[in-house]
Amino acid sequence: MFHEIRTLRQSDWPTIWPILRATFAAGDTYTFPPDISESETHKAWVETPRASFVVCDESGAILGTYFIKPNQPGLGDHVCNCGYVVAPQAQGRGLAAAMCEHSQRIALELGFRAMQFNFVVATNERAVRLWERLGFAVVGRLPGAFRHQTLGFVDALVMFKTLAPADAGSGSDSVFGNGA
Amino acid sequence: MFHEIRTLRQSDWPTIWPILRATFAAGDTYTFPPDISESETHKAWVETPRASFVVCDESGAILGTYFIKPNQPGLGDHVCNCGYVVAPQAQGRGLAAAMCEHSQRIALELGFRAMQFNFVVATNERAVRLWERLGFAVVGRLPGAFRHQTLGFVDALVMFKTLAPADAGSGSDSVFGNGA
Repeated sequence: MFHEIRTLRQSDWPTIWPILRATFAAGDTYTFPPDISESETHKAWVETPRASFVVCDESGAILGTYFIKPNQPGLGDHVCNCGYVVAPQAQGRGLAAAMCEHSQRIALELGFRAMQFNFVVATNERAVRLWERLGFAVVGRLPGAFRHQTLGFVDALVMFKTLAPADAGSGSDSVFGNGA
Repeated sequence: MFHEIRTLRQSDWPTIWPILRATFAAGDTYTFPPDISESETHKAWVETPRASFVVCDESGAILGTYFIKPNQPGLGDHVCNCGYVVAPQAQGRGLAAAMCEHSQRIALELGFRAMQFNFVVATNERAVRLWERLGFAVVGRLPGAFRHQTLGFVDALVMFKTLAPADAGSGSDSVFGNGA
Protein backbone atom coordinates (compact mmCIF):
# COMPACT_ATOMS: atom_id res chain seq x y z
CA MET A 1 0.00 0.00 0.00
CA PHE A 2 1.33 3.43 -0.89
CA HIS A 3 2.02 5.69 2.02
CA GLU A 4 4.13 8.70 2.79
CA ILE A 5 5.68 9.68 6.12
CA ARG A 6 6.32 13.37 6.62
CA THR A 7 6.89 15.87 9.41
CA LEU A 8 3.78 16.79 11.36
CA ARG A 9 2.44 20.28 10.60
CA GLN A 10 0.38 22.39 12.96
CA SER A 11 -2.45 22.21 10.40
CA ASP A 12 -2.55 18.42 10.88
CA TRP A 13 -3.58 18.71 14.52
CA PRO A 14 -7.39 18.85 14.00
CA THR A 15 -7.08 15.52 12.19
CA ILE A 16 -4.65 13.92 14.63
CA TRP A 17 -6.33 14.88 17.89
CA PRO A 18 -9.46 12.71 17.39
CA ILE A 19 -7.24 9.73 16.51
CA LEU A 20 -5.15 10.18 19.64
CA ARG A 21 -8.20 10.89 21.80
CA ALA A 22 -9.89 7.66 20.70
CA THR A 23 -6.70 5.65 21.25
CA PHE A 24 -6.07 6.98 24.74
CA ALA A 25 -9.77 6.78 25.70
CA ALA A 26 -9.69 3.03 25.03
CA GLY A 27 -7.20 2.70 27.91
CA ASP A 28 -5.62 -0.50 26.64
CA THR A 29 -2.27 0.60 25.17
CA TYR A 30 -1.05 3.94 26.59
CA THR A 31 -0.76 5.25 30.14
CA PHE A 32 -2.17 8.66 29.17
CA PRO A 33 -5.31 9.32 31.21
CA PRO A 34 -8.33 8.15 29.17
CA ASP A 35 -9.88 11.62 29.62
CA ILE A 36 -6.68 13.53 28.75
CA SER A 37 -7.29 17.07 27.50
CA GLU A 38 -6.46 18.31 24.02
CA SER A 39 -3.79 20.70 25.34
CA GLU A 40 -2.10 18.00 27.42
CA THR A 41 -2.10 15.68 24.42
CA HIS A 42 -0.66 18.37 22.18
CA LYS A 43 2.05 19.01 24.73
CA ALA A 44 2.97 15.31 24.97
CA TRP A 45 2.77 14.51 21.25
CA VAL A 46 3.97 17.73 19.59
CA GLU A 47 5.58 20.21 22.00
CA THR A 48 7.76 18.00 24.22
CA PRO A 49 9.17 15.59 21.59
CA ARG A 50 12.21 16.32 19.48
CA ALA A 51 10.12 15.70 16.31
CA SER A 52 6.71 14.37 15.29
CA PHE A 53 5.55 12.77 12.03
CA VAL A 54 2.40 11.64 10.23
CA VAL A 55 1.78 8.81 7.80
CA CYS A 56 -0.56 9.59 4.89
CA ASP A 57 -2.19 7.63 2.08
CA GLU A 58 -1.99 8.60 -1.61
CA SER A 59 -4.73 11.19 -1.18
CA GLY A 60 -2.87 12.84 1.70
CA ALA A 61 -5.28 11.53 4.34
CA ILE A 62 -3.56 11.06 7.70
CA LEU A 63 -3.61 7.44 8.88
CA GLY A 64 -1.23 7.59 11.83
CA THR A 65 1.37 9.59 13.71
CA TYR A 66 4.45 9.16 15.86
CA PHE A 67 6.85 11.20 17.99
CA ILE A 68 10.53 10.80 18.88
CA LYS A 69 12.27 12.25 21.94
CA PRO A 70 15.18 11.53 24.30
CA ASN A 71 14.13 8.91 26.83
CA GLN A 72 16.22 10.49 29.59
CA PRO A 73 17.82 13.91 30.05
CA GLY A 74 21.56 14.49 30.12
CA LEU A 75 23.66 11.36 30.40
CA GLY A 76 20.90 9.10 29.08
CA ASP A 77 19.87 11.24 26.10
CA HIS A 78 21.59 9.01 23.53
CA VAL A 79 18.62 6.62 23.89
CA CYS A 80 15.38 7.79 22.28
CA ASN A 81 11.76 6.93 22.91
CA CYS A 82 8.92 6.88 20.36
CA GLY A 83 5.15 6.56 20.50
CA TYR A 84 3.09 5.40 17.51
CA VAL A 85 -0.65 5.56 16.87
CA VAL A 86 -2.52 4.24 13.83
CA ALA A 87 -6.10 5.35 13.11
CA PRO A 88 -8.60 2.55 13.85
CA GLN A 89 -9.75 2.28 10.22
CA ALA A 90 -6.14 1.95 8.99
CA GLN A 91 -4.95 -0.85 11.27
CA GLY A 92 -3.61 -4.10 9.86
CA ARG A 93 -1.90 -2.43 6.88
CA GLY A 94 1.64 -2.40 8.24
CA LEU A 95 1.66 1.29 9.11
CA ALA A 96 3.01 0.82 12.64
CA ALA A 97 5.90 -1.17 11.19
CA ALA A 98 6.49 1.49 8.54
CA MET A 99 6.53 4.26 11.14
CA CYS A 100 8.83 2.29 13.45
CA GLU A 101 11.32 1.63 10.64
CA HIS A 102 11.15 5.31 9.65
CA SER A 103 11.71 6.36 13.25
CA GLN A 104 14.84 4.20 13.52
CA ARG A 105 16.34 6.02 10.53
CA ILE A 106 15.35 9.39 11.99
CA ALA A 107 16.84 8.36 15.34
CA LEU A 108 20.25 7.77 13.78
CA GLU A 109 20.01 11.05 11.85
CA LEU A 110 19.30 12.86 15.13
CA GLY A 111 22.33 11.22 16.77
CA PHE A 112 20.56 8.67 18.97
CA ARG A 113 22.29 5.31 19.50
CA ALA A 114 19.38 3.20 20.73
CA MET A 115 15.59 3.19 21.09
CA GLN A 116 13.64 2.22 24.20
CA PHE A 117 9.95 1.57 24.75
CA ASN A 118 9.30 2.02 28.46
CA PHE A 119 5.82 0.67 28.68
CA VAL A 120 4.54 -1.88 26.16
CA VAL A 121 1.37 -3.33 27.66
CA ALA A 122 1.98 -7.08 27.89
CA THR A 123 -1.53 -7.96 26.76
CA ASN A 124 -0.96 -5.99 23.54
CA GLU A 125 0.52 -9.11 21.96
CA ARG A 126 0.33 -7.81 18.42
CA ALA A 127 2.55 -4.88 19.37
CA VAL A 128 5.02 -7.06 21.27
CA ARG A 129 5.34 -9.42 18.29
CA LEU A 130 5.74 -6.50 15.88
CA TRP A 131 8.50 -4.83 17.90
CA GLU A 132 10.30 -8.15 18.26
CA ARG A 133 10.10 -8.69 14.51
CA LEU A 134 11.64 -5.23 14.04
CA GLY A 135 14.62 -6.09 16.23
CA PHE A 136 13.53 -5.01 19.70
CA ALA A 137 14.19 -7.25 22.70
CA VAL A 138 12.16 -7.46 25.89
CA VAL A 139 14.69 -6.26 28.47
CA GLY A 140 12.33 -5.80 31.39
CA ARG A 141 8.91 -6.68 32.82
CA LEU A 142 7.04 -4.38 35.23
CA PRO A 143 4.59 -6.44 37.27
CA GLY A 144 1.07 -5.04 37.33
CA ALA A 145 2.29 -1.62 36.22
CA PHE A 146 -0.67 -0.90 33.91
CA ARG A 147 -4.30 -0.49 34.91
CA HIS A 148 -5.92 -1.91 31.78
CA GLN A 149 -9.41 -0.45 31.47
CA THR A 150 -11.01 -3.84 30.90
CA LEU A 151 -8.46 -6.39 32.22
CA GLY A 152 -7.32 -4.65 35.43
CA PHE A 153 -3.69 -4.71 36.51
CA VAL A 154 -1.46 -6.19 33.81
CA ASP A 155 2.30 -6.23 33.27
CA ALA A 156 4.16 -3.75 31.09
CA LEU A 157 7.29 -4.62 29.13
CA VAL A 158 10.44 -2.59 28.57
CA MET A 159 11.74 -3.13 25.04
CA PHE A 160 15.07 -1.97 23.65
CA LYS A 161 17.01 -1.92 20.38
CA THR A 162 20.59 -0.80 19.94
CA LEU A 163 20.84 1.18 16.70
CA ALA A 164 24.54 2.09 16.78
CA PRO A 165 27.06 0.01 18.71
CA ALA A 166 28.78 1.89 21.52
CA ASP A 167 32.21 1.27 19.98
CA ALA A 168 31.23 2.35 16.47
CA GLY A 169 32.98 5.38 15.05
CA SER A 170 30.83 8.43 15.44
CA GLY A 171 30.66 11.53 13.32
CA SER A 172 32.94 14.38 14.26
CA ASP A 173 29.87 16.36 15.26
CA SER A 174 28.76 13.73 17.72
CA VAL A 175 28.19 14.85 21.28
CA PHE A 176 28.54 11.24 22.44
CA GLY A 177 32.28 10.98 22.21
CA ASN A 178 33.09 9.18 25.42
CA GLY A 179 32.90 5.65 24.02
CA ALA A 180 34.61 3.15 26.30
CA MET B 1 22.71 7.42 64.45
CA PHE B 2 19.87 9.77 65.22
CA HIS B 3 18.19 11.29 62.25
CA GLU B 4 14.87 12.82 61.39
CA ILE B 5 13.08 12.77 58.04
CA ARG B 6 10.70 15.65 57.42
CA THR B 7 9.01 17.42 54.52
CA LEU B 8 11.28 19.68 52.49
CA ARG B 9 10.72 23.41 53.09
CA GLN B 10 11.50 26.17 50.63
CA SER B 11 14.02 27.51 53.16
CA ASP B 12 15.97 24.23 52.83
CA TRP B 13 16.77 24.85 49.18
CA PRO B 14 20.01 26.87 49.64
CA THR B 15 21.37 23.89 51.59
CA ILE B 16 20.07 21.20 49.25
CA TRP B 17 21.10 22.73 45.94
CA PRO B 18 24.88 22.40 46.50
CA ILE B 19 24.42 18.76 47.52
CA LEU B 20 22.41 17.99 44.39
CA ARG B 21 24.74 20.03 42.17
CA ALA B 22 27.79 18.10 43.39
CA THR B 23 26.00 14.76 42.95
CA PHE B 24 24.84 15.46 39.41
CA ALA B 25 28.16 17.05 38.44
CA ALA B 26 29.93 13.79 39.25
CA GLY B 27 27.97 12.16 36.42
CA ASP B 28 28.15 8.65 37.84
CA THR B 29 24.69 8.02 39.30
CA TYR B 30 21.98 10.26 37.77
CA THR B 31 21.13 11.11 34.17
CA PHE B 32 20.67 14.80 34.96
CA PRO B 33 23.11 16.86 32.87
CA PRO B 34 26.29 17.41 34.92
CA ASP B 35 25.91 21.16 34.31
CA ILE B 36 22.18 21.29 35.13
CA SER B 37 20.96 24.70 36.23
CA GLU B 38 19.58 25.49 39.65
CA SER B 39 16.12 26.22 38.27
CA GLU B 40 15.99 22.94 36.33
CA THR B 41 17.09 21.06 39.43
CA HIS B 42 14.49 22.79 41.57
CA LYS B 43 11.84 21.89 39.01
CA ALA B 44 12.88 18.22 38.95
CA TRP B 45 13.40 17.77 42.69
CA VAL B 46 10.76 20.05 44.23
CA GLU B 47 8.16 21.30 41.74
CA THR B 48 7.38 18.22 39.65
CA PRO B 49 7.31 15.54 42.37
CA ARG B 50 4.28 14.77 44.50
CA ALA B 51 6.37 15.40 47.64
CA SER B 52 9.98 15.96 48.70
CA PHE B 53 11.74 15.28 52.01
CA VAL B 54 15.02 15.92 53.81
CA VAL B 55 16.92 13.87 56.35
CA CYS B 56 18.55 15.82 59.20
CA ASP B 57 20.89 15.04 62.09
CA GLU B 58 20.19 15.94 65.73
CA SER B 59 21.31 19.53 65.14
CA GLY B 60 18.92 19.93 62.23
CA ALA B 61 21.70 19.87 59.62
CA ILE B 62 20.46 18.47 56.30
CA LEU B 63 22.30 15.30 55.27
CA GLY B 64 20.18 14.14 52.35
CA THR B 65 16.97 14.53 50.40
CA TYR B 66 14.52 12.53 48.30
CA PHE B 67 11.45 13.03 46.13
CA ILE B 68 8.45 10.84 45.31
CA LYS B 69 6.27 11.10 42.20
CA PRO B 70 4.12 8.96 39.91
CA ASN B 71 6.35 7.09 37.50
CA GLN B 72 3.79 7.32 34.69
CA PRO B 73 0.71 9.49 34.09
CA GLY B 74 -2.83 8.17 34.05
CA LEU B 75 -3.11 4.39 33.91
CA GLY B 76 0.38 3.84 35.31
CA ASP B 77 0.20 6.32 38.17
CA HIS B 78 -0.24 3.65 40.85
CA VAL B 79 3.52 3.02 40.57
CA CYS B 80 5.75 5.69 42.07
CA ASN B 81 9.33 6.70 41.46
CA CYS B 82 11.81 8.16 43.96
CA GLY B 83 15.24 9.74 43.79
CA TYR B 84 17.57 9.87 46.81
CA VAL B 85 20.74 11.88 47.40
CA VAL B 86 22.99 11.77 50.47
CA ALA B 87 25.55 14.53 51.10
CA PRO B 88 29.11 13.30 50.46
CA GLN B 89 30.20 13.79 54.09
CA ALA B 90 27.20 11.76 55.35
CA GLN B 91 27.57 8.67 53.21
CA GLY B 92 27.99 5.24 54.77
CA ARG B 93 25.67 5.97 57.69
CA GLY B 94 22.57 4.19 56.38
CA LEU B 95 20.75 7.36 55.36
CA ALA B 96 19.85 6.13 51.87
CA ALA B 97 18.29 3.04 53.42
CA ALA B 98 16.44 5.18 55.97
CA MET B 99 15.07 7.46 53.25
CA CYS B 100 14.06 4.50 51.06
CA GLU B 101 12.19 2.82 53.91
CA HIS B 102 10.52 6.14 54.77
CA SER B 103 9.55 6.62 51.12
CA GLN B 104 7.89 3.20 51.00
CA ARG B 105 5.65 4.17 53.92
CA ILE B 106 4.88 7.52 52.31
CA ALA B 107 4.14 5.76 49.02
CA LEU B 108 1.44 3.63 50.64
CA GLU B 109 0.01 6.68 52.41
CA LEU B 110 -0.22 8.45 49.07
CA GLY B 111 -2.04 5.47 47.53
CA PHE B 112 0.78 4.03 45.42
CA ARG B 113 0.94 0.25 45.04
CA ALA B 114 4.53 -0.20 43.88
CA MET B 115 7.83 1.64 43.47
CA GLN B 116 10.03 1.62 40.38
CA PHE B 117 13.58 2.85 39.82
CA ASN B 118 13.96 3.41 36.09
CA PHE B 119 17.65 3.93 35.86
CA VAL B 120 20.00 2.46 38.48
CA VAL B 121 23.49 2.71 37.01
CA ALA B 122 24.79 -0.88 36.95
CA THR B 123 28.29 0.14 38.08
CA ASN B 124 26.78 1.71 41.22
CA GLU B 125 27.01 -1.67 42.94
CA ARG B 126 26.50 -0.30 46.43
CA ALA B 127 23.14 1.13 45.38
CA VAL B 128 22.08 -2.06 43.60
CA ARG B 129 22.91 -4.17 46.67
CA LEU B 130 21.11 -1.72 48.96
CA TRP B 131 17.91 -1.71 46.91
CA GLU B 132 17.97 -5.50 46.71
CA ARG B 133 18.37 -5.71 50.48
CA LEU B 134 15.33 -3.43 50.81
CA GLY B 135 13.19 -5.75 48.69
CA PHE B 136 13.64 -4.41 45.17
CA ALA B 137 14.21 -6.81 42.27
CA VAL B 138 16.10 -6.13 39.08
CA VAL B 139 13.34 -6.44 36.47
CA GLY B 140 15.20 -5.00 33.50
CA ARG B 141 18.62 -4.14 32.08
CA LEU B 142 19.15 -1.31 29.57
CA PRO B 143 22.32 -1.98 27.59
CA GLY B 144 24.69 0.98 27.41
CA ALA B 145 21.94 3.39 28.40
CA PHE B 146 24.13 5.56 30.67
CA ARG B 147 27.10 7.66 29.60
CA HIS B 148 29.19 7.37 32.77
CA GLN B 149 31.51 10.35 32.97
CA THR B 150 34.56 8.22 33.67
CA LEU B 151 33.61 4.69 32.50
CA GLY B 152 31.79 5.50 29.24
CA PHE B 153 28.67 3.62 28.18
CA VAL B 154 27.43 1.35 30.96
CA ASP B 155 24.16 -0.52 31.54
CA ALA B 156 21.30 0.81 33.63
CA LEU B 157 18.97 -1.40 35.66
CA VAL B 158 15.23 -1.16 36.17
CA MET B 159 14.33 -2.13 39.75
CA PHE B 160 10.84 -2.70 41.13
CA LYS B 161 9.11 -3.48 44.40
CA THR B 162 5.44 -4.25 44.84
CA LEU B 163 4.20 -2.52 48.01
CA ALA B 164 0.53 -3.54 47.92
CA PRO B 165 -0.61 -6.69 46.11
CA ALA B 166 -2.97 -6.03 43.23
CA ASP B 167 -5.68 -8.16 44.81
CA ALA B 168 -5.42 -6.53 48.23
CA GLY B 169 -8.48 -4.74 49.50
CA SER B 170 -8.14 -1.02 48.98
CA GLY B 171 -9.57 1.80 50.99
CA SER B 172 -12.91 3.18 49.97
CA ASP B 173 -11.22 6.39 48.89
CA SER B 174 -8.86 4.58 46.53
CA VAL B 175 -8.85 5.75 42.94
CA PHE B 176 -7.40 2.39 41.92
CA GLY B 177 -10.59 0.40 42.21
CA ASN B 178 -10.38 -1.75 39.13
CA GLY B 179 -8.58 -4.68 40.70
CA ALA B 180 -8.79 -7.79 38.55
